Amino acid sequence: MAVYTEISDEELTDFVARYDIGTLQSAKGIAEGVENSNFLLHTTKSPFILTLYEKRTSESDLPFFLGLMEHLAAHGLSCPVPVHARDGSVLHRLADRPAAMVTFLEGMDVKRPQAAHCGQVGMALAQMHEAGADFSMTRPNALSVEGWSALADQAGARADTVSEGLGTLIADELELMASRWPKDLPRGVIHADLFPDNVFFIGGELSGLIDFYFACTDAYAYDIAICLNAWCFEADDSFNVTKGRALLSGYNKVRSLEEEEAQALPLLARGASLRFLLTRLVDWLDGPQDALVKPKDPREYLKRLRFHQHAVSAADYGYGG
Amino acid sequence: MAVYTEISDEELTDFVARYDIGTLQSAKGIAEGVENSNFLLHTTKSPFILTLYEKRTSESDLPFFLGLMEHLAAHGLSCPVPVHARDGSVLHRLADRPAAMVTFLEGMDVKRPQAAHCGQVGMALAQMHEAGADFSMTRPNALSVEGWSALADQAGARADTVSEGLGTLIADELELMASRWPKDLPRGVIHADLFPDNVFFIGGELSGLIDFYFACTDAYAYDIAICLNAWCFEADDSFNVTKGRALLSGYNKVRSLEEEEAQALPLLARGASLRFLLTRLVDWLDGPQDALVKPKDPREYLKRLRFHQHAVSAADYGYGG
Repeated sequence: MAVYTEISDEELTDFVARYDIGTLQSAKGIAEGVENSNFLLHTTKSPFILTLYEKRTSESDLPFFLGLMEHLAAHGLSCPVPVHARDGSVLHRLADRPAAMVTFLEGMDVKRPQAAHCGQVGMALAQMHEAGADFSMTRPNALSVEGWSALADQAGARADTVSEGLGTLIADELELMASRWPKDLPRGVIHADLFPDNVFFIGGELSGLIDFYFACTDAYAYDIAICLNAWCFEADDSFNVTKGRALLSGYNKVRSLEEEEAQALPLLARGASLRFLLTRLVDWLDGPQDALVKPKDPREYLKRLRFHQHAVSAADYGYGG
Repeated sequence: MAVYTEISDEELTDFVARYDIGTLQSAKGIAEGVENSNFLLHTTKSPFILTLYEKRTSESDLPFFLGLMEHLAAHGLSCPVPVHARDGSVLHRLADRPAAMVTFLEGMDVKRPQAAHCGQVGMALAQMHEAGADFSMTRPNALSVEGWSALADQAGARADTVSEGLGTLIADELELMASRWPKDLPRGVIHADLFPDNVFFIGGELSGLIDFYFACTDAYAYDIAICLNAWCFEADDSFNVTKGRALLSGYNKVRSLEEEEAQALPLLARGASLRFLLTRLVDWLDGPQDALVKPKDPREYLKRLRFHQHAVSAADYGYGG
């Protein structure tokens, strides 16, 4: 949770007047997202989310993220839609930060996802991949293999203070990934961070996806691998193959997985767990000492990585079952 | 700001179903209030605020606070109204805490109040006093003179670590208050904490009052004295008599101040500044080391107290001008 920036009522009222969205009635800083400041606004017309982008989101990437959300919504995906101001633009400045207004997406994230949720997430992920297929902008994935090496260097020998032998394990994994990471899988825009807090449900039905601020151009199957890590492990770090099967078959209903994608799943899932292990490790070691954002334990992903090390085929994740 | 307690989507959905307020669509923890956890809910009918009462709010006081809000709203004051569940009750439990649902009051607090805001606050305060006149419940003010002594004892010699000589000043003030604090002023339900963050405006017009969790039975004029402290000092700690005049004349338009109340204002304002000096001092020295709630600087109220020490009559606050 995070609300970093305070805005005065006058600033907000003036800012809202730049849009044709009615008159501002209220604005509440909400405990959502760890990267940016978010405000839930009520106007005389409807609710909106105002986001102020704090320094961890690169300003030069914002046209990609906002353009993507608009493109996905126009192609039928349920997600927040950037609102154009009267001057036509979606990206503005407020309180000395980049700022954007998006429509409010009703729904709640699930704290304890069940297989039925996983099935819907798989379908929505595939819908996102299809909806984004003709999006014209691209953005390299800064958190792919090369990015992981940089993170490993940053953690360095300190990795072993978190878990004994972790430094060696990371080095070995990086070497494996550098030699075996697939380069020719079907690719396009991926969400790259579709964790349970970024998927909303109402009454058990998926209502939409949020938080596209890690979206990038990469292999579709890698996005699936991230979801397997994010949705299908239990609190005791065991993999729930029923959830994996639901997620994969949900995905497959909308977009058929190609054979090479299915074959790559164990390696992709292993890479995805390494990616979250490394970002959590660096946040753990070097993150801001700010009680507002409690760093997540990297060891959770170490356990998942160990599961993926022993997976031999997509069947281990419930594929084709 | 504070959101202390997490609630799962299932718990929330079940909780909302106890009320006839539509189906839950979304719930956001909001950065409002430092004492309790607040969630802005959207249902298929309208927005609501769900409050979970954390340990600083005494559970035995909740029937008074909730009953008061309902009474005030029924008597025309604009404020959040507790919603009765299907079983008729307003006070429930959720996530092992007392919980209540209230209507959502649109509006925003003003960060830089002007005289026009102060005038409306004076009127609204008087409206609250009139609306509460026949409220049948009472609650002693735990933060009046006797309560101040206990706070002073808690701070003890440590007061001087915050400002040299503060311990002696507090002791002297307490002695004065004990001998001169007025006992026979007109009394009834007062808000006791009507700071700018507890008054909402839309487009410059006051839309209502919130946060009645310090409300108690005490002298009406003491409530005015709190507002003079809270609304009429500038960032440089000078008293803005134009704002004072606006606040007092706004109040007087709705409820005429009696002569003895006007005469008591300097002493009441002095006592009010001592009250906030002491609570801030104790929070500063002994408050939870929790970055979510940054303690406010007690010295701000030391400067206000010094102003009041030199005030000789209500005219110094703009009364009768």
